[in-house]
Amino acid sequence: MITKKLSEVPITSPKGYAGVKKQVLIGPGDGSGEIVMRYFTLAPGGASPYHTHPWPHLVKVEVGTGVTVDEDGNESPIQAGDYVYVNDDEKHQFKNTGEGTFEFMCIVPRRGEA
Amino acid sequence: MITKKLSEVPITSPKGYAGVKKQVLIGPGDGSGEIVMRYFTLAPGGASPYHTHPWPHLVKVEVGTGVTVDEDGNESPIQAGDYVYVNDDEKHQFKNTGEGTFEFMCIVPRRGEA
Repeated sequence: MITKKLSEVPITSPKGYAGVKKQVLIGPGDGSGEIVMRYFTLAPGGASPYHTHPWPHLVKVEVGTGVTVDEDGNESPIQAGDYVYVNDDEKHQFKNTGEGTFEFMCIVPRRGEA
Repeated sequence: MITKKLSEVPITSPKGYAGVKKQVLIGPGDGSGEIVMRYFTLAPGGASPYHTHPWPHLVKVEVGTGVTVDEDGNESPIQAGDYVYVNDDEKHQFKNTGEGTFEFMCIVPRRGEA
């Protein structure tokens, strides 16, 4: 059993993700070979790529306000406390629309974590 | 893409879990066939079973204070904001040791959700 706090987890800056910081909360380094729990912090104006991939996202918004962009390009507001499910192969994006950071947890199967 | 709030998710009382309420935040009903995100609320004095099973838990404590019990019976304090990883086949328990509710998110592979 492993217990940790967000502040103990190393922060990386994924390539091609402007204004995005990433932390792997629980992953292969902890012995979790099936599921990976990540934490993303988007700076004001930051966004994840508008993309698709053959794995799902299970998301919980932790801090701030933003929008999801669906496969038709429609934006819907989301905020701290909201849960979002993105299916395999569904085009999606998360954008920070607030004045502060927009932070969310994003869980993927192991194949979704580079 | 599905977005929801905790207050919109039905509450169940799992059999054999005294003082425990459960909500399936994201699961097969949402199209998530690989990973299930659940939310547990333990009343004061409540606890999950001290048990083992062939799947992992990825946990985030949302509200309150409690302890984990590891496979040797050792208790360790946990509180809101902490992340816990329990490996497959590792004996474990979560207990509420506070005066209010103890609430946590618990993510499992599909086979771990009855």
